[in-house]
Amino acid sequence: MNETLNNLKEINKSYVQNLPNSRKIYETGSTKDIKVPIREITLSPTAKSDGTFEENPPLFVYDTTGPYTDPNAQIDLHVGLEKLREKWITDRGDTEKLNDFISTYFHNRYTDSDLDTLRFPNIPKPRRAQKGKNVSQMHYARAGIITPEMEFVAIRENCKVHEMRKNKLLARQHKGMNYGANLPDIYTPKFVRDEIAAGRAIIPANINHPESEPMIIGRNFMVKINANIGNSATSSSIEEEVEKMIWSTRWGGDTVMDLSTGKNIHETREWIIRNSAVPIGTVPIYQALEKVNGIAEDLTWEVYRDTLIEQAEQGVDYFTIHAGVRLHYIPMSASRLTGTVSRGGSIMAKWCLHHHKESFLYEHFEDICEIMKAYDVAFSLGDGLRPGSIYDANDEAQFAELETLGELTKIAWKHDVQVMIEGPGHVPMHLIKENMDKELQDCYEAPFYTLGPLTTDIAPGYDHITSAIGAAQIGWYGTAMLCYVTPKEHLGLPDKNDVKEGIITYKIAAHAADLAKGFPGAQIRDNAMSKARFEFRWYDQFNIGFDPDKAMSFHDEELPTEGAKIAHFCSMCGPKFCSMKISQDIRDFADEKDIKDINEAFNEGMKEQSEKFQKIEKETIGGIYQKV
Amino acid sequence: MNETLNNLKEINKSYVQNLPNSRKIYETGSTKDIKVPIREITLSPTAKSDGTFEENPPLFVYDTTGPYTDPNAQIDLHVGLEKLREKWITDRGDTEKLNDFISTYFHNRYTDSDLDTLRFPNIPKPRRAQKGKNVSQMHYARAGIITPEMEFVAIRENCKVHEMRKNKLLARQHKGMNYGANLPDIYTPKFVRDEIAAGRAIIPANINHPESEPMIIGRNFMVKINANIGNSATSSSIEEEVEKMIWSTRWGGDTVMDLSTGKNIHETREWIIRNSAVPIGTVPIYQALEKVNGIAEDLTWEVYRDTLIEQAEQGVDYFTIHAGVRLHYIPMSASRLTGTVSRGGSIMAKWCLHHHKESFLYEHFEDICEIMKAYDVAFSLGDGLRPGSIYDANDEAQFAELETLGELTKIAWKHDVQVMIEGPGHVPMHLIKENMDKELQDCYEAPFYTLGPLTTDIAPGYDHITSAIGAAQIGWYGTAMLCYVTPKEHLGLPDKNDVKEGIITYKIAAHAADLAKGFPGAQIRDNAMSKARFEFRWYDQFNIGFDPDKAMSFHDEELPTEGAKIAHFCSMCGPKFCSMKISQDIRDFADEKDIKDINEAFNEGMKEQSEKFQKIEKETIGGIYQKV
Repeated sequence: MNETLNNLKEINKSYVQNLPNSRKIYETGSTKDIKVPIREITLSPTAKSDGTFEENPPLFVYDTTGPYTDPNAQIDLHVGLEKLREKWITDRGDTEKLNDFISTYFHNRYTDSDLDTLRFPNIPKPRRAQKGKNVSQMHYARAGIITPEMEFVAIRENCKVHEMRKNKLLARQHKGMNYGANLPDIYTPKFVRDEIAAGRAIIPANINHPESEPMIIGRNFMVKINANIGNSATSSSIEEEVEKMIWSTRWGGDTVMDLSTGKNIHETREWIIRNSAVPIGTVPIYQALEKVNGIAEDLTWEVYRDTLIEQAEQGVDYFTIHAGVRLHYIPMSASRLTGTVSRGGSIMAKWCLHHHKESFLYEHFEDICEIMKAYDVAFSLGDGLRPGSIYDANDEAQFAELETLGELTKIAWKHDVQVMIEGPGHVPMHLIKENMDKELQDCYEAPFYTLGPLTTDIAPGYDHITSAIGAAQIGWYGTAMLCYVTPKEHLGLPDKNDVKEGIITYKIAAHAADLAKGFPGAQIRDNAMSKARFEFRWYDQFNIGFDPDKAMSFHDEELPTEGAKIAHFCSMCGPKFCSMKISQDIRDFADEKDIKDINEAFNEGMKEQSEKFQKIEKETIGGIYQKV
Repeated sequence: MNETLNNLKEINKSYVQNLPNSRKIYETGSTKDIKVPIREITLSPTAKSDGTFEENPPLFVYDTTGPYTDPNAQIDLHVGLEKLREKWITDRGDTEKLNDFISTYFHNRYTDSDLDTLRFPNIPKPRRAQKGKNVSQMHYARAGIITPEMEFVAIRENCKVHEMRKNKLLARQHKGMNYGANLPDIYTPKFVRDEIAAGRAIIPANINHPESEPMIIGRNFMVKINANIGNSATSSSIEEEVEKMIWSTRWGGDTVMDLSTGKNIHETREWIIRNSAVPIGTVPIYQALEKVNGIAEDLTWEVYRDTLIEQAEQGVDYFTIHAGVRLHYIPMSASRLTGTVSRGGSIMAKWCLHHHKESFLYEHFEDICEIMKAYDVAFSLGDGLRPGSIYDANDEAQFAELETLGELTKIAWKHDVQVMIEGPGHVPMHLIKENMDKELQDCYEAPFYTLGPLTTDIAPGYDHITSAIGAAQIGWYGTAMLCYVTPKEHLGLPDKNDVKEGIITYKIAAHAADLAKGFPGAQIRDNAMSKARFEFRWYDQFNIGFDPDKAMSFHDEELPTEGAKIAHFCSMCGPKFCSMKISQDIRDFADEKDIKDINEAFNEGMKEQSEKFQKIEKETIGGIYQKV
């Protein structure tokens, strides 16, 4: 056993703890093996002013962490995760397990003994659709079939909302403004199926990634976030990338894209997929370019095709494919300030220009569809001509490509292949909505998947924030999945800390969008937090939030003692100036007199109440300030 | 000399350096003493592919740092800053320098020898309007007078935009969407005067704070940001607070609120004001409460009045006054989840309820106006009933108070007293615009000054981000000044790092709003950044941004060498995958052939060009990837 593998074992140990006061539970579907993970956060009781306690119901939140946080799961990174979906896939009887890999490149790598120490030790044989079969979730949906995957996501999106809504206070929610999205009060497998059939949502679920827990991307569902990881020529290793993947999902990443462009891309990806409970996306052109030594013009359809098959056999769930960068669009980018900032887009632009030929991705799009449907890989149609600056936002090149992506969507759907559409990038706030509206129109409501957008260019080091502003907005307008941006954007490769910062920032943007859209039950967690805040349940405040560790450490910088965790103030305002405390004092007065509504107190005669208050106050809460 | 004072000397030394490649320049107005500070950022030349260089014009940016970054300024914290506005004030001939302080509390503190070691050593005698005179900028504006302060802010808002616009590329800007704001192409003193006369903008400029550099708050001007500092009962010291004030302005804070509620509030404020080049705001009720030992019900108009005079004599530029928390609004907050979260609001609610009396702030509002106009202190009418949670957003209590703030605005304007209106707080995205629209309507377009708003409650430790999302939006809709929120919000008192993080985050929100509104020239800095990015001018990328130090340190984590600062890639993608590099290669090809527009190249015949490209490419840029 080599060092790499040992390190991977080490890394894992720190991730198998659930977050504080949290435990993983499963909600079972129509069959026992549909076991949907949910994180249950236990809350402490409320101490009432009469000395009694009132229980607070647990919160149930969407859980992306996979088996890592399940104390009963057997985690061995050298074996990979349990193959949750394998039975579902085989039961459908439309696939075959191959004896060998089709990809030529796979064999090149597999027979290279120099790579033995790097290679994942338990590579499974690949599965493929039987000849003439189509194994996409869209194909099943259109045939009227509800797959276990669809049932799984219906339960997952509900996330026990009906149980939580029994608490009237927590259930209260502002009416949303959802720009034509159709958010049901409760999700059913049928609803999921119909959304997939219509192309409005996708379940990225390669049959060679049976370890993945199904999740859905569509604007009539919870807004999702993606974390980009991957090495570059100048930095990172397999261990670091596997660690980043687990780390991403620990903090809420719904999918992970492995954008490696450095060494050992094939081997890195195998380790990631085998150990990932979330769908994995890639940009196959990066690896294809590696195979032709980085010379864009040496790319061929054959090299690219083998790369698609290689990655589909490994289990990649969605491919970014920049098939919309057409030859005659390239001149449109000439007047830009920042040219073509998509890596894939610039590679294809260079290829097209060099050969004076239409893009082979565009030309071979139907061939690509044939591959996609044999493994159920979803398209993430790349926006190769997205703007790279505020200056270039919403320009001719960008929108010309978007129309082509719509045309390609129609072709993919002809093959029942799932599609989402990638979007910008860099857009000032007032031009964001146009992006969403055009996407829905030009691409027939296929899910939009945007990178931010950044709303200004002048804050390198803070582009998670410049982009979260745009991401929250476009999520509200209808984007189905937000690709995170880390603080290192434009400056360097994100490390583990940057990944976490990016994830949490995007969880905020996605959740702010869910609240604004009126996603069913979205406000329950906010309400639970606000109640905990008003009641000074400090541990609950930490634990309900996205990052309990940071919240507690911030609180403890000034007031580290255990006593401060039950104090009715914090260091921000100190004991005398806590408005929440004063509010509670006022409310306790009303409770004391068994008057539920202070309004009634006022109706009974304010003057009289005031006298009573003065008396009660002296007896019960007088001098509280002095005590502290 | 005591330790406090020594420490203050020490702190200062690290702040007198300007940011990298920046120098302070002054633009002079109609008289020599109208010297408007501007930061000039020098950029490096662009290296052209033919080996020549093209100069990049310097950038001029709004400078809030005061004399600290002026190498010619004499900085001595024990003396205080130069009294820039003193001559303007005395020249108007409507004020008198008093021989002694009116405030009783001042004398209590001044005669307490225990405080000798803490006291600012050079306290100036106070100035006040002559009997029957009104010294507010609004009063002058309504009399048709253009004050030096008004001319100063006109020059400051322009920030040499006309000079920068000579560069056509940098000048290009998307048309904004400004929701009825009136953004002129260039600011004139007359425009400033008319905005102030109409109540749409304010220049907070207490005659006892002549050290301040005039700045304007109004939705027809650049969006401003405020930084809250101040100690609490559990933490901080005078040194730390003075340091935070200088630190805030170093990173772009336009005003600073001293919200101290802990020890030695009076002395802390004196140190801050005497050394601050930005307007200082306070919430006088905090100190008034201190004076009655924290017992809200013991507050009296007399104690409060003396506090207003004490602070006005020190030079506070704007007061948050929660005069809109009326007795009969308090029951409206009974159904809230988080009660009254404004500290001032909850204090007043408690007072009203205890005494069953209308708020003395409301009852004495005209008396307060008399004080305000004698010193030119501006009102920041506090939103004491703002929501403290998503749950409570946009409720009856909040909007009832807003209407009262409108009523009070009219009264203040009757006295020619400047007014801005404070706003929430916690609001989901889709309910933000209603806040802005109602404020403009109910408060007759008085400038709105909002705290965030936070768009979700579930991310303690990241509330600078949850709120920046809301702040950017409401800034776009018309908010004139954004009160920052730091990562410590709801958890503890911000330290120096939190202050910086809060400031930069809010600079982003304010600038994103300026871009979306179409503020004249707002995009120039973004364009300059994008050009530097495309041209791999790394130092310029760092220096154009809000935080050059962080940007460079992030870049240098992976590629610390000087060589990497001229490299045409970064560690994010590495050399082979840099889309900007590939784009530049494509563009160089066009330049080489003296074809300005690739479109023309295409018109000349794509096929032919393709062949030429292949040839030229070999000669000029062939094999670049191999070289790296």
